[in-house]
Amino acid sequence: MQLNIAVLGGDGIGPEVVAQSIKCLRSVEETFGHSFTFRKELVGAAAIKATGDPLPERTLQTCKDSDAILFGAIGSPEFDSDPKAKVWPEQGLLRLRKELGLFANIRPVKVFPTLVKQSPLAKKIVQHTDLVIYRELSGGIYYGHKSINEDNNSATDTCTYTESEISRITHLAFKAAKARRKKLTLVDKANVLETSRLWRRTVYTIAESYPEVTLDSLFIDNAAVQMILNPSQFDVILTDIMFGDILSDQGSVIAGSIGLLPSASVGADYAMFEPIHGSYPDAKDKNIANPVASILSTAMLLQHFKMQEESDAVVAAVLKSFSKKIVTPDIMGSSKYGTNYVGDFIADNIME
Amino acid sequence: MQLNIAVLGGDGIGPEVVAQSIKCLRSVEETFGHSFTFRKELVGAAAIKATGDPLPERTLQTCKDSDAILFGAIGSPEFDSDPKAKVWPEQGLLRLRKELGLFANIRPVKVFPTLVKQSPLAKKIVQHTDLVIYRELSGGIYYGHKSINEDNNSATDTCTYTESEISRITHLAFKAAKARRKKLTLVDKANVLETSRLWRRTVYTIAESYPEVTLDSLFIDNAAVQMILNPSQFDVILTDIMFGDILSDQGSVIAGSIGLLPSASVGADYAMFEPIHGSYPDAKDKNIANPVASILSTAMLLQHFKMQEESDAVVAAVLKSFSKKIVTPDIMGSSKYGTNYVGDFIADNIME
Ligand SMILES: CC(C)[C@H](C(=O)O)[C@@H](O)C(=O)O
Ligand SMILES: CC(C)[C@H](C(=O)O)[C@@H](O)C(=O)O
Repeated sequence: MQLNIAVLGGDGIGPEVVAQSIKCLRSVEETFGHSFTFRKELVGAAAIKATGDPLPERTLQTCKDSDAILFGAIGSPEFDSDPKAKVWPEQGLLRLRKELGLFANIRPVKVFPTLVKQSPLAKKIVQHTDLVIYRELSGGIYYGHKSINEDNNSATDTCTYTESEISRITHLAFKAAKARRKKLTLVDKANVLETSRLWRRTVYTIAESYPEVTLDSLFIDNAAVQMILNPSQFDVILTDIMFGDILSDQGSVIAGSIGLLPSASVGADYAMFEPIHGSYPDAKDKNIANPVASILSTAMLLQHFKMQEESDAVVAAVLKSFSKKIVTPDIMGSSKYGTNYVGDFIADNIME
Repeated sequence: MQLNIAVLGGDGIGPEVVAQSIKCLRSVEETFGHSFTFRKELVGAAAIKATGDPLPERTLQTCKDSDAILFGAIGSPEFDSDPKAKVWPEQGLLRLRKELGLFANIRPVKVFPTLVKQSPLAKKIVQHTDLVIYRELSGGIYYGHKSINEDNNSATDTCTYTESEISRITHLAFKAAKARRKKLTLVDKANVLETSRLWRRTVYTIAESYPEVTLDSLFIDNAAVQMILNPSQFDVILTDIMFGDILSDQGSVIAGSIGLLPSASVGADYAMFEPIHGSYPDAKDKNIANPVASILSTAMLLQHFKMQEESDAVVAAVLKSFSKKIVTPDIMGSSKYGTNYVGDFIADNIME
């Protein structure tokens, strides 16, 4: 197979971890006889520095001309501490998702048996966790009208959802549940928010077309509790952009390190793959960042293009790194292996 | 001291747990020679059933005529599963908070040494946790304009904050931090939301008046992670109504049971005290609900009226119940003690 892949390393540890993913995809290319081309472009703080724009036109065009996008991470402390800035890195990611129509952010949370003891939660609580979060990614409060009113010193964010925005991701989530353990949990705040009530009405109506799937719903405050107390109760979680942001980061802790979890963002025309972790500026260039989340994102990429065997080979190589304890220090404090070494090990172990 | 206390048991386990709190306050009254009167009123699903209104005029009036309000819990599954309902229980609580001007919801999260092993998190992670969340309670997306657009089947919630709404709770939070470990953490999503950026600007400006307090800020997704990985890093957390809802429920898990944590909601004129847990309809009338969260809310009530010794006596009695293992089954699965027995034990042990 021939694939053009846009590579947007972004900020902080982003470029280092995607570099390991490229190694792994090169290894897949050789082993399985595919042809991948990679085109690197700027995004985020790096792009602001070079061009003034967190998503330069050229970056967007390259993404549109590619079959898939490999994304690193975004965000930089100099912007976080300046709430008066007019431009900041995250705008690049938000605009990119919107321009590409990526409406579904798919975030699997799985506990790897060899890493169970890394989790801050008790083994009996986490060991059977295997859930996937379907987070809406192109609507809600992230993309609603925003304003500042200088008169009374107020600010406003608007959260709007249309039935069709809810519908399209809901169908994806039901299909995923049907192919898994047949349970879907809608997370919302329907006791307070009008948008949540629309989600509830829409999702319960669509549920009638998926009689084999059991649907239930939880308020977000309770879901955040259940995610810690009993994550294995979940199969597929469906939620909006804001709640999904919080719940999925929380889920990452369960797995033992936020450095482990991949994600896919898909729409009708494009697909982007990125770790769920942030840019961790403190770890930048120290060769300590965990490349696994990014590498597992390439496994999602391969699966997306129906290269199941190839995807399995990547996952198997990652599991081998765990069992051989070739892991970064976030997984094992005493580890002397760095980002590069772990990346090389995994890439070298991708075989048919 | 003479206090008129409105008692709004509400739904589910609410009435059972506040009944234990009344016992404890009666015991304080006798022991310390005060005079408390209690007036019970309906709210929530119970009030809808009786009057059609989740906050009947008479309930509101009684609250306004009282010095303090003891609140149980609210919510009922028959309403949750009907997103088309026009009236639902939570509206009663939301209106009550608004009508009384309760703008600050204060939620302490403390791990009791005797209960450390109840926490699903490792002892070394949770043992030194002692934080308090200052959650804004009368603005933001809960109270913004809401609408449904029948044409395109969309729904909207509006999140607005004014500088003065942010200011008043920020001052309370800084004062609390000053009297504690002198650290304040603002939790927001300033990389996405305009309201968060206003929070950041406002809070950083106010910080200049509290040079002894160290201020930092975290994005909510990261805060949800840090709350699990390292809750003892927090002293005072300041956040908006929506993020505060999620973070404080999450915090309750750390303490070992959501049945342990109290809260105070205060404004310029009124103060209300309630457990942070919900109405747990499944536990209703089974004599298994943990009364401690409600009882510790009375300790916050007493402290609010500067009855420090009385408040300490309530807390001491609660701690005694822990060390004697007079606890409900949520704390110790094998426990045969019910809500009433635990309530009696604590009330009996309130002494000078
Ligand atoms: C960087 C930020 C805007 C982003 C989000 O909130 O969507 C990130 O937290 C994520 O989850 O992908
Ligand atoms: C019942 C509900 C409306 C309420 C809230 O979200 O404020 C509750 O969860 C709380 O935290 O007090």
